[in-house]
Amino acid sequence: MVANRVRHTVAFTLVHQEGSAEERDFLDAAERLADIPGVEAFELLAEVSPKNGYRFGISMEFADGAAYDRYNEHPDHIRFVQQRWVSEVSEFIEIDYAAR
Amino acid sequence: MVANRVRHTVAFTLVHQEGSAEERDFLDAAERLADIPGVEAFELLAEVSPKNGYRFGISMEFADGAAYDRYNEHPDHIRFVQQRWVSEVSEFIEIDYAAR
Repeated sequence: MVANRVRHTVAFTLVHQEGSAEERDFLDAAERLADIPGVEAFELLAEVSPKNGYRFGISMEFADGAAYDRYNEHPDHIRFVQQRWVSEVSEFIEIDYAAR
Repeated sequence: MVANRVRHTVAFTLVHQEGSAEERDFLDAAERLADIPGVEAFELLAEVSPKNGYRFGISMEFADGAAYDRYNEHPDHIRFVQQRWVSEVSEFIEIDYAAR
């Protein structure tokens, strides 16, 4: 990775049944996080390791920590966390990477 | 991500003191995993989220699950796990991503 750049990732599991309309609706809403200014290289992924219980992942990159902070404070992000994430995600882990 | 492709990631913490020669030596050895056939987009990273205790990360990609399996079974990988990982890594989590 380039210096200063941050890759923000989160692996998660939903409370919804696999393949349900509720799952699809949550993932559609999560994909709209890509529209928040500063978000780059956005990916909504399947988590496929048998060594943990997470089923999905989101990966996004920011040019620097300031851009990451602006994302965290953006009203669309705060609204998504409050209205969707808190009630529809059962387990998650956030892991953020930068150049060494 | 492209269909069939797998991104294998592991976040980890070492038993070694931060900035020590032992830490440097482990990370040097970890970087040589990039030489194993099939490994693409190898990155040795800093884990920077305050929301977990991991300090480093490795990310690599494989063209498909078969290439990932060959990596797992490669003698250089098995040797690294047995001779270094088991005794020098205190905590870790493996998270693997693929296209949805």
